[in-house]
Amino acid sequence: MVAEPTAFAARGTTAEVEQGLVFQPLFNADGLIPAIVSDAQSGDVLMFAWMNPTALQLTLSTGLAHFWSRSRRRLWQKGEESGNVLRVSEIRTDCDQDAIWLKVVLAPAGAACHTGNRSCFYRVLTPADPAGGGVALKRA
Amino acid sequence: MVAEPTAFAARGTTAEVEQGLVFQPLFNADGLIPAIVSDAQSGDVLMFAWMNPTALQLTLSTGLAHFWSRSRRRLWQKGEESGNVLRVSEIRTDCDQDAIWLKVVLAPAGAACHTGNRSCFYRVLTPADPAGGGVALKRA
Repeated sequence: MVAEPTAFAARGTTAEVEQGLVFQPLFNADGLIPAIVSDAQSGDVLMFAWMNPTALQLTLSTGLAHFWSRSRRRLWQKGEESGNVLRVSEIRTDCDQDAIWLKVVLAPAGAACHTGNRSCFYRVLTPADPAGGGVALKRA
Repeated sequence: MVAEPTAFAARGTTAEVEQGLVFQPLFNADGLIPAIVSDAQSGDVLMFAWMNPTALQLTLSTGLAHFWSRSRRRLWQKGEESGNVLRVSEIRTDCDQDAIWLKVVLAPAGAACHTGNRSCFYRVLTPADPAGGGVALKRA
């Protein structure tokens, strides 16, 4: 992927990145930054996805979550087909500004997951088998 | 990084990965899986990090969060130096089993972030400048 021109500031020193008040996001070698999406009401993590600079800019300017699909290799607005749009209530970045956390509002009966589940994280790992066997999942 | 032998099951079909009850995690080309860490009490996202198979196995077997440090290129138990250990109360995976969500218990006055903040996500992005200027941050 070719890097696209963006309005985001260039990276500064470690002190500027960690303590500063200028957004200086770090996109990885593929031009992407990881985005954690949680439900603004319940606090549940709904999904995990990736953004390129354009997806992040569109999310900021429209208030609707946009991502970069690695499998389809294209920009997408979450819910553009399913109607399950994610309205952003807050966006945060972390200490080294290489991850994004979106708090979003999803309709009460909405599904953030393409499987129809409200959250993509609908299965819990069971305790590991001490003998080194596989790990089972159960519905959350 | 060379893939290490693990107790995790091999990937199955899409239906098995999405609907099955066998944990079949997908590690990326670097042998890592992204891990979202949230506070089991408040629901706040505390940090975002990466796990290799060994870190994930140790997290499952000890109940304490372990990660792979990409910068230091080594396994680490969170809090091994700072004392800010993260006790895992639940581990989930997502629909395509390529991300992990840990709900953890952190001491009331504990800091998950090396900067001393409880959460690494201590700054909020302000609305984008319509003229395309930079994006400012403010303390959460």
